[in-house]
Amino acid sequence: MNAPAALAHLVPEVQQREVPAALIAALKARFGERCSTALAVREQHGRDESSFQVPPPAAVVFAESTQDVADAVRLASEHDTPVIPFGVGSSLEGHLLAVQGGISIDVQRMNKVLAVNPEDLTVTVQPGVTRKQLNDEIKSTGLFFPIDPGADASLGGMSATRASGTNAVRYGTMRENVLALEVVTASGEVIRTGTRAKKSSAGYDLTRLFVGSEGTLGVITEVTLRLYPIPEAISAAICSFPSIEAAVRTTIQMIQLGVPIARVELIDVNSVRMVNAHSKLGLREEPMLLMEFHGSPAGVKEQAEVVQEIASEHGGKAFEWAATPEERTRLWTARHNAYFAAVQSRPGCRAISTDTCVPISRLADCLLDSVAEADASGIPYFLVGHVGDGNFHFGYLLDPDDPKERQVAEELNDKLVHRALSLGGTCTGEHGVGLHKMGFLVDEAGAGAVDMMRTIKRALDPKNIMNPGKIFSLG
Amino acid sequence: MNAPAALAHLVPEVQQREVPAALIAALKARFGERCSTALAVREQHGRDESSFQVPPPAAVVFAESTQDVADAVRLASEHDTPVIPFGVGSSLEGHLLAVQGGISIDVQRMNKVLAVNPEDLTVTVQPGVTRKQLNDEIKSTGLFFPIDPGADASLGGMSATRASGTNAVRYGTMRENVLALEVVTASGEVIRTGTRAKKSSAGYDLTRLFVGSEGTLGVITEVTLRLYPIPEAISAAICSFPSIEAAVRTTIQMIQLGVPIARVELIDVNSVRMVNAHSKLGLREEPMLLMEFHGSPAGVKEQAEVVQEIASEHGGKAFEWAATPEERTRLWTARHNAYFAAVQSRPGCRAISTDTCVPISRLADCLLDSVAEADASGIPYFLVGHVGDGNFHFGYLLDPDDPKERQVAEELNDKLVHRALSLGGTCTGEHGVGLHKMGFLVDEAGAGAVDMMRTIKRALDPKNIMNPGKIFSLG
Repeated sequence: MNAPAALAHLVPEVQQREVPAALIAALKARFGERCSTALAVREQHGRDESSFQVPPPAAVVFAESTQDVADAVRLASEHDTPVIPFGVGSSLEGHLLAVQGGISIDVQRMNKVLAVNPEDLTVTVQPGVTRKQLNDEIKSTGLFFPIDPGADASLGGMSATRASGTNAVRYGTMRENVLALEVVTASGEVIRTGTRAKKSSAGYDLTRLFVGSEGTLGVITEVTLRLYPIPEAISAAICSFPSIEAAVRTTIQMIQLGVPIARVELIDVNSVRMVNAHSKLGLREEPMLLMEFHGSPAGVKEQAEVVQEIASEHGGKAFEWAATPEERTRLWTARHNAYFAAVQSRPGCRAISTDTCVPISRLADCLLDSVAEADASGIPYFLVGHVGDGNFHFGYLLDPDDPKERQVAEELNDKLVHRALSLGGTCTGEHGVGLHKMGFLVDEAGAGAVDMMRTIKRALDPKNIMNPGKIFSLG
Repeated sequence: MNAPAALAHLVPEVQQREVPAALIAALKARFGERCSTALAVREQHGRDESSFQVPPPAAVVFAESTQDVADAVRLASEHDTPVIPFGVGSSLEGHLLAVQGGISIDVQRMNKVLAVNPEDLTVTVQPGVTRKQLNDEIKSTGLFFPIDPGADASLGGMSATRASGTNAVRYGTMRENVLALEVVTASGEVIRTGTRAKKSSAGYDLTRLFVGSEGTLGVITEVTLRLYPIPEAISAAICSFPSIEAAVRTTIQMIQLGVPIARVELIDVNSVRMVNAHSKLGLREEPMLLMEFHGSPAGVKEQAEVVQEIASEHGGKAFEWAATPEERTRLWTARHNAYFAAVQSRPGCRAISTDTCVPISRLADCLLDSVAEADASGIPYFLVGHVGDGNFHFGYLLDPDDPKERQVAEELNDKLVHRALSLGGTCTGEHGVGLHKMGFLVDEAGAGAVDMMRTIKRALDPKNIMNPGKIFSLG
């Protein structure tokens, strides 16, 4: 690949180890047709939603059980060969790419809800179950699982990247909502990292060590999650603001007052325009908060009244209710489609998304300077944010045939990340490090903390076969 | 020590390494009078609230800064000598005992609240700040920190044991409420494990690896915590039930209905009697729930009405309000004094406390069988529980001069723990493993998971100097 010098760090260092023919033979003997070396299958498993391009894995194993995963990992370990777990392929940062070669273990067929415990508000699933599938299957219990990254991701993948989404301001992220895991370790052993007890002080928190480890320490083969009662009343509202700052100030104040808001999304004027065009809506073309309240009918009304009052103090206008479930769904669908609306607004473009998260008191500062820089760059963009958590995404809409645009966008992201870090924030709120943010992680955590991560990785995966080359380099 | 055979596992394996005179000299040179070898000081740092007896550490360093801790650890490391962090000494499971000798690092003088960020609902403190001190110091911000183990523990110690308490049912435990740590590693390096961002997907979750690691991976020198708005309205209520099961069923139903109850404590009939005697109360001598509701005035009223209705369906009687803050304080003080009330009920006794936690659907089963066994044993006991979390404590009141009683109590605990594990629970909800539960941890987590903990420990502390001999053996 020929990339401009400034993009050198974005070209993954590809050093694919040779996958021994004996391993492929052993996998074929064990898995038969469930081990594929067809180019189309390998290519499908060798990319994700990032824009990196890397040669695909040498083979794909379609696992149907924990034992399948354990056997595949054990065989790979015997042949010193990398293993990359694959859910639905919706990662954004190059997590799935075979930068050091190896095999992909696809867990999509491990898609059973294993046990629902409505009295305990817990569920145990296989890792290939997606978030929408889970909510469909448990609907009759009156419970739901709130974590909603944009994609209909697998719960194994969501655990591995510590995903979140629009409901995190009230319900937390995968960090707070994974109770326990079953994991196949780098040696092919099967361990459990916790129980169904709601809390525990029993030893090291292996569950949270694996949540967010991006497949680099083991393969997740079961996930036990917390569930929540579907609220008796749900209502959504939108409100337009004279500025992004006014919308942020409104959010800070409602959270300080203890309003248990379930969702509060910032949508900038560019996104509103794109969403209006894409979803045939007539939203006022100003920065907007899209909110949702959960609770009892009286509680929801009370929350909304408080928020309406705070918003009007900050110049909020056109506070509008989505009174019916249909209207509510229409609004949230529009929000979830913001990405597609944006991509359609510039035909042929490719979007790349930033993911910084800062303490909410610093959010306006962080956003305003970054918006000014994005405006000055001339690159079309949109901005959406889980503003209650201080997490937001710029989506830069790039002409894929113009490397200069990619470079400018990466420079914008670079400035944004360093601004966020200087304000006490993180380079990634919910997408993970993958390949793209390995440099930023060192800037954020410091060499000592990243060295500690490396030490853990080397101890738990001495052959460096579990999704190697991600999060940090071991060189 | 001569203990009955059945208690053999309760006598800590003491293998104190010799502390080199050169280390003591180096510590004295560096810390002057802040390094003490006086027997009284060492003895005070060589015990906790457990009933184990072990020779004290060879010296105590009173640290006043992160640099002090780093220097002490570095010197100890140079001399291959164990280091035991000390907060206020309120651990229950032998965490502070110098079973392999070494030095104690007392962080009580590191007691500054370093930064309050009211807009972000965060605070950063030194590890010697206690939970009550923190709440006193931030009162004017309108915020509070909810985690309340019985003792006025240090926040460093609470982080190290993954503590919780009565508010965890709504606000979570230290696991959910520590945002970031500063830690001195086993080599004396200082690292930070996170930022002030509310969420992050940036690399391994070192914060949660250290929360609950009981001093075995490093010394915590700063803690960044989440805070919460003091609720506009708080009300407390008590309700008596015909049986423990009825009280548990009431709790399960309110949680399934999504009532955001802040506290719900089960108090058995023995505890009610003891508390009545100790605090001069006239509580009805039946199993009781002590509850607290947080929210807006209307929200609190609504929650209480729902709970009252559920309780009456399960035979709840004498639903009574603590209308004034004074009455509320009186009730909760009585609850927090249950331990002392119990100890006073049997003059000269020593209490030992169990700490299992099970999925709430299994709580009645677990409790009823264990109550029957405790009744049959003839040993006086009381039972209190953070019933919304499925966590409860039997307190056995033992004659310290009668080893038979201790043996019977340990046998009761053994049965209780194995019952809890068979019901999907944990051996410790909030006290930690320390010395006392090392065997139970293996039963709970399995040899593979405990081996993974050992591997992490060996990698991060190759000389085994950080609070060695706790959580698991390395033998």
